[in-house]
Amino acid sequence: MSTHCVIIGGVALGPKVASRLKRCAPETKVTLLDRDRLISYGGCGIPYFVGGDVQDVTELRKTMYHMERNEEFFKKVKHFDVLTGKEVVSINRRDKYVTYRDVDTGVEKDLSYDTLVLATGTTPVLPPLPGTDLSNVFTVANLHHAQAIKEQLTQGAIESAVIVGGGAIGLEMAESFADLWGVETTVVEMLDQALPQAIGPDMAGLVQKQLEDNEVRFLAGTKVTEVIGDPENRVKGVKTTAGEIPCQAVIFSVGVRPNTSLAAEAGLSIGANHGIVVNARLRTSDPYIYAGGDCIEQRHLISGESLVMPLGSLANRQGRVIANNIAGGNDQFKGVIGNFCVKLFDIGVARAGLTVRQAEEAGFDPEYALVVQPDRAHFYPTSAIMYLKLIADKKTRQVLGVEALGPNGDAVKARVDAIAAVLPYKIDCQDISNLEVCYSPPYASAMDIVNVAGNVLQNILDGLNQPIFPQELADTFPGSGAVVLDVRHPDQARFGVEKYKEQWLNIPLEEIPDRMEEVPRDKPVHVYCNTGTRSYEVQRYLNAKGWDRVSGVQGSYAVLKNIAPDLDERE
Amino acid sequence: MSTHCVIIGGVALGPKVASRLKRCAPETKVTLLDRDRLISYGGCGIPYFVGGDVQDVTELRKTMYHMERNEEFFKKVKHFDVLTGKEVVSINRRDKYVTYRDVDTGVEKDLSYDTLVLATGTTPVLPPLPGTDLSNVFTVANLHHAQAIKEQLTQGAIESAVIVGGGAIGLEMAESFADLWGVETTVVEMLDQALPQAIGPDMAGLVQKQLEDNEVRFLAGTKVTEVIGDPENRVKGVKTTAGEIPCQAVIFSVGVRPNTSLAAEAGLSIGANHGIVVNARLRTSDPYIYAGGDCIEQRHLISGESLVMPLGSLANRQGRVIANNIAGGNDQFKGVIGNFCVKLFDIGVARAGLTVRQAEEAGFDPEYALVVQPDRAHFYPTSAIMYLKLIADKKTRQVLGVEALGPNGDAVKARVDAIAAVLPYKIDCQDISNLEVCYSPPYASAMDIVNVAGNVLQNILDGLNQPIFPQELADTFPGSGAVVLDVRHPDQARFGVEKYKEQWLNIPLEEIPDRMEEVPRDKPVHVYCNTGTRSYEVQRYLNAKGWDRVSGVQGSYAVLKNIAPDLDERE
Repeated sequence: MSTHCVIIGGVALGPKVASRLKRCAPETKVTLLDRDRLISYGGCGIPYFVGGDVQDVTELRKTMYHMERNEEFFKKVKHFDVLTGKEVVSINRRDKYVTYRDVDTGVEKDLSYDTLVLATGTTPVLPPLPGTDLSNVFTVANLHHAQAIKEQLTQGAIESAVIVGGGAIGLEMAESFADLWGVETTVVEMLDQALPQAIGPDMAGLVQKQLEDNEVRFLAGTKVTEVIGDPENRVKGVKTTAGEIPCQAVIFSVGVRPNTSLAAEAGLSIGANHGIVVNARLRTSDPYIYAGGDCIEQRHLISGESLVMPLGSLANRQGRVIANNIAGGNDQFKGVIGNFCVKLFDIGVARAGLTVRQAEEAGFDPEYALVVQPDRAHFYPTSAIMYLKLIADKKTRQVLGVEALGPNGDAVKARVDAIAAVLPYKIDCQDISNLEVCYSPPYASAMDIVNVAGNVLQNILDGLNQPIFPQELADTFPGSGAVVLDVRHPDQARFGVEKYKEQWLNIPLEEIPDRMEEVPRDKPVHVYCNTGTRSYEVQRYLNAKGWDRVSGVQGSYAVLKNIAPDLDERE
Repeated sequence: MSTHCVIIGGVALGPKVASRLKRCAPETKVTLLDRDRLISYGGCGIPYFVGGDVQDVTELRKTMYHMERNEEFFKKVKHFDVLTGKEVVSINRRDKYVTYRDVDTGVEKDLSYDTLVLATGTTPVLPPLPGTDLSNVFTVANLHHAQAIKEQLTQGAIESAVIVGGGAIGLEMAESFADLWGVETTVVEMLDQALPQAIGPDMAGLVQKQLEDNEVRFLAGTKVTEVIGDPENRVKGVKTTAGEIPCQAVIFSVGVRPNTSLAAEAGLSIGANHGIVVNARLRTSDPYIYAGGDCIEQRHLISGESLVMPLGSLANRQGRVIANNIAGGNDQFKGVIGNFCVKLFDIGVARAGLTVRQAEEAGFDPEYALVVQPDRAHFYPTSAIMYLKLIADKKTRQVLGVEALGPNGDAVKARVDAIAAVLPYKIDCQDISNLEVCYSPPYASAMDIVNVAGNVLQNILDGLNQPIFPQELADTFPGSGAVVLDVRHPDQARFGVEKYKEQWLNIPLEEIPDRMEEVPRDKPVHVYCNTGTRSYEVQRYLNAKGWDRVSGVQGSYAVLKNIAPDLDERE
């Protein structure tokens, strides 16, 4: 007997459920409804369409074999029915039917289901501020918005723009505005750093430097209070807690809210984070209704917390799980680790697990290592500096999170994905020290940055490595009265020695054994080099010789030049 | 009380043990001996020195902060003693001392130890053939060999060369000869494929195509029987089972043998693969002697077998474990997964775990998926095709291995490292379907190739996907009488239709529902497209409509164009 599966929502999860279900259980009739006419698109590609990497918006709707994913495609190739321009207005769970309205005619119809799938996605948040109804105030939610934004850019109507929200979408949009179109772009972020949900403040400092280097202004700790318009109701600026910024366009990218009103009105469980509650089989509180993708609450496998995590990749994986379950299987989606990556101008940023702040909030007592090292053999011509932060719980040594960035984004992703893969297994730092990753000089060092990070973090937890983190040095030096022991070549140390006199002591690494008596014993000594490697070496040596107030500056110059360039202006 | 640790061997593991030990237990006296004068080098960098990516051989001996790692460096910076040019000739375990001989003077001395570390490495195998003593017959073992080879190239003395052995080092050397120096290069491999220890024959076919495209001749299944010389005892060619090849240089890279004679003579356990036997703490059968790196037998975490795996990355990780144990800890090295990668001209190749053949030998019953997909969002400008093979046991569905290749080697490594990281946890294909990897269009597809491979392999094991692998098609078609159902655009199908007539049926994907009656029911039908994705779609649809002799060509044109270009010469 044929059953009928109705799916509400046609961007990522919906079409995946439908396609998979027709391959597993071809006798099932499948109908997908969406209120939009344009469905099944790569929403994450919007910044690349706006920024010109993708010429035609239709590219975001095509398969890799270049067929446009429209109603006809789904009928002829995937063998299910798609009704676009149909908004579902209610779910009758008792009699198992939905009522939908044609968005053009307003005519309402009922459609019976045996199983229902909610793939309703999210809506971008538009804060309740004066002026958000002006023209040229945008969110980045769908292809219509994308086209409207690009049209304005193409016409040269935007000379300067304000992006509200320094998360991934905001920063990607900032790049697309500034890079191709030369728009004077300012990002305004309420919190004190870029990518606040994704990475810690030290890594964010490197990201913000990258934005500045590419002429994107980044205002942290700043609130937009009003969007102001001209007499023709077009944006002419925003008021912020840091003053007024003139602009011809404003993009709000301050987060999204799961679309759950249908689910809530039908009496399904909604979670504390406003997402639909599902079990590991991705079933809602109604056994005939599944939900997945951006509109649900997901379980974080490290923190145990629930959260909404809107990502097309998760939606696609979950679509298969739902289809398998509707087809009669028992397929489970265990939860998320929070893998995330973003390209920003010339660097790639990736992370997984928890940041230090998130770890604290989840009840852990986090410690971390900050490692700076070439992303492949340092003698290989394309090698470039990578930054990697590894976070673990002090007591259990369970690894909680990783953050990395560098010019080769694929290489950054390689490190984060490898560590992320083992995070669900509640591994120890030592497992990272010995994590087997592919080695060959064109792609890695013999001691890969992943393994080094595991080693450094163990050394810190064991008390061998006495760290001072760069931000702390920047905040306290030279006022603290501590001495920086710079073990680089005198040419590199010259700036510090001249600026800070006896507070910046230069003894090159190889001269330490002969000159160690110059190092003060009665004040804090911060050993400093290019990336932190030599600092650790010297810190251990001085410890062995009886110095007990010595710490090593983690990441040293490679980090400080980005987050506190005044401290040591080597170049 | 200070103890004395003596280390024999100074390339990778030895200096790592010594440096770490001095940081953990600075009161320990450490002496490292090596018979060579040039120590502590990145041996894996030799092909890049020969090929010109690395200009000066000293680069391979420098730290990333550009200090040369010589005796003085280790004394001043790492605080231990290095004796070069000293060959250890015997170990007296009862009285705990070694006897070493000065390689120049022949004078012998004794040196007492409390703990001894064997880091004796390997020696390249030179097969017992006539002519291997001629000049310009090389192995690739140390910096002296590297310099000798490069000197010949620089002088223009080599117009053509034969590389014996198609493993990683052989192929890297082939690239370095052919690419920079324009040497006419032939690789002679006894087994039937390139990289026989690393990847399966299908992936090797893609590698061999890459070699051919770059004018390196690859002779599989061919034995060298003699190296022939001119009257001045210089190489002038090799005799092989496939005929004589004139050349001015021969490089043997047919494998290595662990250097274990010292250990064996001292009565330590030697394993079946001729490596020193150690426990998880990397201790030999003598509690005062540790060993690690290339000279030991390692435990494979999937097969349970012992093997010798010479890799600088493993040596470095093991060096830390040994140092920690000597310093009084209990640190363990659990075993290896067999991660491996190599750059060959314009592609990167990576793998981990077991190949199909190795899995069979280890008692598994392997099945596999071969997936072809862009390495990032297909609409992103830098996307390129990646090939990925995922192998699992049919019964338990335990994932056993992964192989991948593509033009962006960092992206290839990212996939293999992520899967490799979870292999020790005896995971199931479904864990790969849901493996969380970072997603953003510049770096991945929403359905990443990793997840797709998990899905395809599950589909095969579930009997949903009925595969025919490209090599089988190439071996049997058109003689088998089967029909290829080409679901691509008619322009792409033209060659097959014209060449094979009614045995090559072209029905574009979207016309299948209307034209399916043209598909024969009474013979095998192989559905064919560009990468295999559409083939699966159509195979499932035809199955649902009652066709039961339909299989999908895995990887389709994207693989066949490389391994059997005559079959479908689209371009």
